[in-house]
Amino acid sequence: MIGLSSYVGVMESEINFAEEQQPLSPQANSWTNKQDQKPKVFGGFVLVHAGAGYHSESKAKEYKHVCKRACQRAVEQLKAGVLAVEAVAAALVELEDSPFTNAGMGSNLNLSGEIECDASIMDGKSLHYGAVGAISGIKNPVLVANRLLSEAQKGKLSAGRIPPCFLVGRGAHDWALSHGIPSWPSEKMATKFSLSAYRRNKRKMELAEKMEPGQTKRRRQSSENENGSGCLDTVGAVVVDLEGNVAAAVSSGGLAMKHSGRVGQAAHYGCGCWAENGCNLNTYSTAVSTSGCGEHLIRTMLARECSSAMQTEDAHRALLETMQNKFISSPFLASEDRVLGGVIVLRCCRCVETQPSQNIQGILVEFLWSHTTESMCVGYMSAQDSKARTVG
Amino acid sequence: MIGLSSYVGVMESEINFAEEQQPLSPQANSWTNKQDQKPKVFGGFVLVHAGAGYHSESKAKEYKHVCKRACQRAVEQLKAGVLAVEAVAAALVELEDSPFTNAGMGSNLNLSGEIECDASIMDGKSLHYGAVGAISGIKNPVLVANRLLSEAQKGKLSAGRIPPCFLVGRGAHDWALSHGIPSWPSEKMATKFSLSAYRRNKRKMELAEKMEPGQTKRRRQSSENENGSGCLDTVGAVVVDLEGNVAAAVSSGGLAMKHSGRVGQAAHYGCGCWAENGCNLNTYSTAVSTSGCGEHLIRTMLARECSSAMQTEDAHRALLETMQNKFISSPFLASEDRVLGGVIVLRCCRCVETQPSQNIQGILVEFLWSHTTESMCVGYMSAQDSKARTVG
Repeated sequence: MIGLSSYVGVMESEINFAEEQQPLSPQANSWTNKQDQKPKVFGGFVLVHAGAGYHSESKAKEYKHVCKRACQRAVEQLKAGVLAVEAVAAALVELEDSPFTNAGMGSNLNLSGEIECDASIMDGKSLHYGAVGAISGIKNPVLVANRLLSEAQKGKLSAGRIPPCFLVGRGAHDWALSHGIPSWPSEKMATKFSLSAYRRNKRKMELAEKMEPGQTKRRRQSSENENGSGCLDTVGAVVVDLEGNVAAAVSSGGLAMKHSGRVGQAAHYGCGCWAENGCNLNTYSTAVSTSGCGEHLIRTMLARECSSAMQTEDAHRALLETMQNKFISSPFLASEDRVLGGVIVLRCCRCVETQPSQNIQGILVEFLWSHTTESMCVGYMSAQDSKARTVG
Repeated sequence: MIGLSSYVGVMESEINFAEEQQPLSPQANSWTNKQDQKPKVFGGFVLVHAGAGYHSESKAKEYKHVCKRACQRAVEQLKAGVLAVEAVAAALVELEDSPFTNAGMGSNLNLSGEIECDASIMDGKSLHYGAVGAISGIKNPVLVANRLLSEAQKGKLSAGRIPPCFLVGRGAHDWALSHGIPSWPSEKMATKFSLSAYRRNKRKMELAEKMEPGQTKRRRQSSENENGSGCLDTVGAVVVDLEGNVAAAVSSGGLAMKHSGRVGQAAHYGCGCWAENGCNLNTYSTAVSTSGCGEHLIRTMLARECSSAMQTEDAHRALLETMQNKFISSPFLASEDRVLGGVIVLRCCRCVETQPSQNIQGILVEFLWSHTTESMCVGYMSAQDSKARTVG
């Protein structure tokens, strides 16, 4: 299976990594990787991303560091025996806490100069989902989403009320506080970097509106780098635990200079992340997390589309076809001059290893990523690895 | 095609209506209707719902009236030559303006005694979508959703920024005002009926929490009528215009006693409504609007599932199977003791009529509805009808 990252978990192995670039269209490329398959003792696996966007070299270095730390955090959790959904939340906390990523601390500021975050998480075992949109004053939005998920799993509230799976704005903030998640001062959410980007973007907007007297408020054409100053760096992760359960999560500060109250794909069911354990109907367990322009990812429901496509044998081909047919050439985005997005995908199934000599049931893990943006930083690590690896 | 509502638009005809009840499971029924197919001059068609829930007889009467008025509003628009998306918005305004429906004025109050509304609209022609969540102080949330849709169709904002498709809370309210949609005093949104329901529900909650000292905050079992006092009455409509374009919309005050900031299916892409014109891949144009428990409808993406299912020949069977397999028996709702929802579905395709004598190209319109709740009020009308009809 050329170009597919796969990994069989029964015994130790050395990972041989090769990057391969496959142009999808003049405006879009897909990066995938491949490695030799050697069995390992399976203890779980994590794949993370620090966003699809346009990264400077200095930023790329920071992204690699945070991706590695996020992988290590998830692996620590997996080794402690927690379920995939808790490990994926741990990875997200690390990604959100980085001042360089556009999630949690250091998020893009909106038009009003405020930080409003989106995050969601999905548990492939219970198929429960939790999400928050346009939430302010919370250091780790993913922890609120995760708490919504776990509270919903406990069943109905008093008087038969159905617990919420999606909360936004002030209500989301207040719910978090009433569930023991502390408030975080807004001024600590912004960083030197995010504040200077805000000032730069504001000047750019004012200039653009002056320069286009006929179209002061809008225009159809734009170059790639004009788009919210190229800051699309939603973060996310997908995890499989030692029992083979999958989980996915995503977190974002949203597009730079977005309108207050705007919610992107990171809070949108089926668009930001997806996780579904295998069952009678589905051979493979799948987990997906997306990054890019929220409006494009919402209207194409890219996370769920990628997950559905993963039930065919050739995962690599399925992902490329999905990115081409359901995203780049999607009729839902026919009016867009450029389609911006990236995905990380993990799929796994139980398999019987005939090497060495005895039959041991293991879990085959395959992981892939693809993006139409200039760059996307990805990290991955298995519970047997001593350190994480990064690409992008 | 037994049990399928179908309608051929080329010439005048009398409508013979028959209601048919088809039990899906001990806990769920599906109502569908059939009528003789006689051709009419096609000028468009509208199908509306005033929610799936548990309606008293007096309320059912009011619902029938408002459904009729909503149909008439949409048909007036269709006769004036507007596109489906504008006609569906007109129908929704009428449904929202009724003090009896749980949408716009008279919506359910949340835990804090406030009204926060969700609404969304989708245009099958452009495949654009607009949505607002947890919005307060706006008389017609659907008009904000529709304005988001039409603004997004105009292309990018200044400096290449991508226009939002989904706004929530205070930000949504402020965006509406800056786009000429007036604010509406919150005290005028609540009605005598919604305020008394709030007081009743509050007492019920307090009583339930006193009665269950071991489980003061939650419990797993609940009877149907306990669920938010049975008020699930999201409203919606689906329309096909004289050119054959489809559109769908939905609007809701959400579950009674919901947490502040909770967003339900009415604002969720693929869950509250769906509209997609036919194309090379899809023979049929489809439009769907849902009602019921938002969390159930989000987690099953019921609107989009129903739309996808409509590309097979037997629409009636496809809808029953979708309701059974993708909703009632959905693995995503495996932990729920009762699954609450309803859908209205419209599909159409161009067809060649061989009667009378000459070949005239017309549009075949089929409309269906199904619900697992006790009742669902539905109204429909073609541009040739002198008055609307209702069921439920």
